Amino acid sequence: MRTQVVIIGGGPSGLLLSQLLHVRGIDSIVLERKTRDYVLGRIRAGVLERGLLDLMREAGIADRMEREGHPHDGTSIAHPGGMFHIDFKALTGHSVMVYGQTEVTRDLYDAREKADGRIEFEVEQVEIHDADSAKPHVTFRRDGTEHRIDCDFVAGCDGYHGVSRQAIPLAVRCEYEKTYPFGWLGILSETPPVNDELIYANSERGFALCSMRNENLSRYYIQCALSDKPEDWTDAAFWQELKRRLPGEVAENLVTGPSIEKSIAPLRSFVCEPMRWGRLFLCGDAAHIVPPTGAKGLNTAASDVHYLYNALRQFYEERDPEGIDRYSERALARVWKAERFSWWFSSLLHRYPEQSAFDLRMQRAELEFLKSNRAAQTAMAENYVGLPY
Amino acid sequence: MRTQVVIIGGGPSGLLLSQLLHVRGIDSIVLERKTRDYVLGRIRAGVLERGLLDLMREAGIADRMEREGHPHDGTSIAHPGGMFHIDFKALTGHSVMVYGQTEVTRDLYDAREKADGRIEFEVEQVEIHDADSAKPHVTFRRDGTEHRIDCDFVAGCDGYHGVSRQAIPLAVRCEYEKTYPFGWLGILSETPPVNDELIYANSERGFALCSMRNENLSRYYIQCALSDKPEDWTDAAFWQELKRRLPGEVAENLVTGPSIEKSIAPLRSFVCEPMRWGRLFLCGDAAHIVPPTGAKGLNTAASDVHYLYNALRQFYEERDPEGIDRYSERALARVWKAERFSWWFSSLLHRYPEQSAFDLRMQRAELEFLKSNRAAQTAMAENYVGLPY
Repeated sequence: MRTQVVIIGGGPSGLLLSQLLHVRGIDSIVLERKTRDYVLGRIRAGVLERGLLDLMREAGIADRMEREGHPHDGTSIAHPGGMFHIDFKALTGHSVMVYGQTEVTRDLYDAREKADGRIEFEVEQVEIHDADSAKPHVTFRRDGTEHRIDCDFVAGCDGYHGVSRQAIPLAVRCEYEKTYPFGWLGILSETPPVNDELIYANSERGFALCSMRNENLSRYYIQCALSDKPEDWTDAAFWQELKRRLPGEVAENLVTGPSIEKSIAPLRSFVCEPMRWGRLFLCGDAAHIVPPTGAKGLNTAASDVHYLYNALRQFYEERDPEGIDRYSERALARVWKAERFSWWFSSLLHRYPEQSAFDLRMQRAELEFLKSNRAAQTAMAENYVGLPY
Repeated sequence: MRTQVVIIGGGPSGLLLSQLLHVRGIDSIVLERKTRDYVLGRIRAGVLERGLLDLMREAGIADRMEREGHPHDGTSIAHPGGMFHIDFKALTGHSVMVYGQTEVTRDLYDAREKADGRIEFEVEQVEIHDADSAKPHVTFRRDGTEHRIDCDFVAGCDGYHGVSRQAIPLAVRCEYEKTYPFGWLGILSETPPVNDELIYANSERGFALCSMRNENLSRYYIQCALSDKPEDWTDAAFWQELKRRLPGEVAENLVTGPSIEKSIAPLRSFVCEPMRWGRLFLCGDAAHIVPPTGAKGLNTAASDVHYLYNALRQFYEERDPEGIDRYSERALARVWKAERFSWWFSSLLHRYPEQSAFDLRMQRAELEFLKSNRAAQTAMAENYVGLPY
């Protein structure tokens, strides 16, 4: 087999890249370890930045998002001293779009199918060969048979646990990591969201987040101990704890119901440098993880896709390798900004076991400053709606 | 003896309060443990916020400052990735004034003398009595004799080690503290400053600051180990280390010379709550300490003086105790903002022994964000020139 770009990983980054390349007449094959249904079963974030919306439009997969997505012009931040609103639209001229990552992935699968895009599911033992040469190839097994694809480039969109990052030799790879001393216990419930917009809450009992997918599908999170298991938490216990972390007037309006999903996610910051090695490019979670506070995971993956798509386009259309040579530098510059924002926003909202009384007061002072200072709100809003590519 | 307000401490806060009260016809006596010359011999910061300038004007002691002070419209921040400028004037409409704290104190002493203001020097064993009653009094000894002053109010402007804070019972007093794992080694030299404005430097070898008093008096600092002693550092070693922490083009222009003062200061954040107990008020370092990064020490003391002066004025002129009752709350709200800024600016610029590779990258990302984002620069500049009272 031969293609121009082998894309390892059939999640939203890989599919979006594949679809964008297709629109420009660049051929790719996507390799996915799991089935389509498995990928679509993953519950992920659902707040999309303007940059990602633009990419979806460019990829021709924005119709349902435009129809069914919910633009949010701001968000609320609750803390022990009250609740205040950050008006993204007034501060930056932009909104964010609430539209589940699962829906984005579904739209991408539909588009790839319609275009006869090639996606190989349930592949095993994927290996990248000669990425530091002009003629890389990728091998994999399926149903006991070994396959080989020759290509010009390899895009590693296979997440944190994927093979792509590991293909960069340790001698040139540098990894930065921070783990947070707590997790997020999240539930999905078929109940109307408690508020039109998201509410981020810093409470004395820890962080809470009121989010949503649509008018009858709510997503709520509470900070929990890393040792907690989802089965430790009955629905009733979850709702009770959530209410205790929200301002009274919000808790009063909370509609509870059975959870249809319940899980615990650890929080981590991670960056791998560089993001290119020869003709192998890392995209999204393969190269970086952010804690979910601020919803930068998918959006930062999308910014990588933006830089990579444009680099490949420049290479094939203009025979100019400049974008390829500078991919890692450009992608990382924006990645570190998103890492900083996610780390800062996490630090602002969670309770940390090691926090001293002084540290807690600094957190409170930061919240008070954000509440009262337009410039601080603008800096926050510009990050939240997405810094320009 | 009897007066309306006993002011404990003859540093700039106590003198400024005394002078402001005098202008309004409110009588005070200042008690100072040391001599005038000793107080004037203390080397302290010299960057004054607009709020302090306004108070100096109101106190009638602004003439020399207006004549000899140097307005600074911005500052530069150097880091391993380059150097950038923050334009206070363009971002906030305000500047800061470089004018030594020693000069402010001298102007205040001159004004108090001219007005026959009463300052008792070299007092010992100062004690505050009945501060929680309507009739407090203060006792002290001088030359072996015990003295007593009856008064309406006591202002504790006697610094961190003074007796005033200790007079608030432990049961109602809450103290917050953070110590930083490094100190500042500072020198004063009769050389022209290397730059028209201050340069704050985050370098791989630690923090450095280029400051000044006037066109032939420079003040430079470098971050040092807490275990260092001033005598460990020859002038030559200081200049060499300073140069290594500054961008090449700055180091090249540095004019070196013998130091006329050399000392090491630890960095600390400290806040005592409440700042009022009955008829005793804490002002300045008696209630709070900030690390010197951002020059908020004297300026935050001045904001306390502002609230206290206005509270006393309101009490004597309008017989309204509202300002007195709310002094602690109002002063502390602004104190915590200054604490946050000083902590944040310190965190941004120093190297911490416990910093992980990820933490270092967050610091770098924060510098890059500040360099590139106008809202972030505005928030910084608004803090630097002084948040409104």
